[in-house]
Amino acid sequence: MARVAVCLSGCGVKDGSEIHEAVLTLLALDQAGAQIVCCAPNVDQPAVVNHLTGTASREKRNVLVESARIARGIIKDLATVHARDIDALVFPGGLGAAKNLCTFADDGPTCKVNPEVQRIIGEMLAARKPIAAICIAPAMLARAAASQGIHAEVTIGTDHATAAAITKTGAKHRDCSCTSFVVDHEHRIVTTPAYMLGQGPAEVFEGIRGLVSEIMRMVKGG
Amino acid sequence: MARVAVCLSGCGVKDGSEIHEAVLTLLALDQAGAQIVCCAPNVDQPAVVNHLTGTASREKRNVLVESARIARGIIKDLATVHARDIDALVFPGGLGAAKNLCTFADDGPTCKVNPEVQRIIGEMLAARKPIAAICIAPAMLARAAASQGIHAEVTIGTDHATAAAITKTGAKHRDCSCTSFVVDHEHRIVTTPAYMLGQGPAEVFEGIRGLVSEIMRMVKGG
Repeated sequence: MARVAVCLSGCGVKDGSEIHEAVLTLLALDQAGAQIVCCAPNVDQPAVVNHLTGTASREKRNVLVESARIARGIIKDLATVHARDIDALVFPGGLGAAKNLCTFADDGPTCKVNPEVQRIIGEMLAARKPIAAICIAPAMLARAAASQGIHAEVTIGTDHATAAAITKTGAKHRDCSCTSFVVDHEHRIVTTPAYMLGQGPAEVFEGIRGLVSEIMRMVKGG
Repeated sequence: MARVAVCLSGCGVKDGSEIHEAVLTLLALDQAGAQIVCCAPNVDQPAVVNHLTGTASREKRNVLVESARIARGIIKDLATVHARDIDALVFPGGLGAAKNLCTFADDGPTCKVNPEVQRIIGEMLAARKPIAAICIAPAMLARAAASQGIHAEVTIGTDHATAAAITKTGAKHRDCSCTSFVVDHEHRIVTTPAYMLGQGPAEVFEGIRGLVSEIMRMVKGG
């Protein structure tokens, strides 16, 4: 049975994991027969956003604690997850991927990546195990891979400003629709735009199901 | 296009909406071509639970504000939603359905139901528009319907203690598997056990997809 880690970044599109993308990733993995390992970095969120008003909240929340809501309590501190224990790694999107896993939302192509996120990505690339990233998460993955000297080919959809920032990390960007995905066969990296373009869960699920099928194919194909 | 309201109860299985059930309901409705109206009561949660440790937290959270995370910010105060504006109503599960929408978790069959939840259920029953409830939410629905003199036939799976409490509201309980659902044709009520029995999102989605198909059939069939 393929063991696939899903690295969450909180719980909510505006300050954490995009919840639909996270759950639809879990659905596609479960339908494909994968053994799922949810994980998240054990760090405080730099910001909490009221999702009703869209305004900043004064609350303090922790990325691992909030991610546990999506994982129904069954989740590991990312620091305890290693490439040797898993066959593939998926990063759902949401602003948490660009604020909590790295600082791309504030710093763009020169952003800092969370050390544990950087470590697991480095381990996966070195082991040539597949990595998938959804929505805005490919921007974080592009930067983390570039730090290892790897210039990935990824998509975040068709947003030219974000694509230009990704290109500045050294990565290549390819336009892609919500229901499709981009495969970097050389580096075994799979990406899909999801809610960077999607209007609802049905079309977002099409792209994510395709992405999950591709990483499962890579895991089985060796 | 069928307009279907999804009434949320927060964001997280231990103190709000079960997130997988909520998202999989939105997925099934979107795949079925429904126009989705997310809503939740604008009330403070009586409790907040740390989903990593399972222990109570001292934070204060609001049901509508937290539900907005699942709805991606597009959500209505339940007080502004009326049966005349919608064709069907779905309640996902999670302990929020038994703590925030009513007091079933503490008070069992004599629980109090949130006044706006009681109102919308009363309006839907009077209009003979379909109502669906998932996981533990059928316990709340059974109590609310009984207050209107309607003794619904529902399922929460196979848990005998919970089924006995539901029977005490005046409702009938039928055992049901996670991948199936129970239809009360007389009162146009559809229920499925989801995570009362389910082991993962794939089988939970089977039951929810069936439940959504049934309410869409009722909406179209008149």
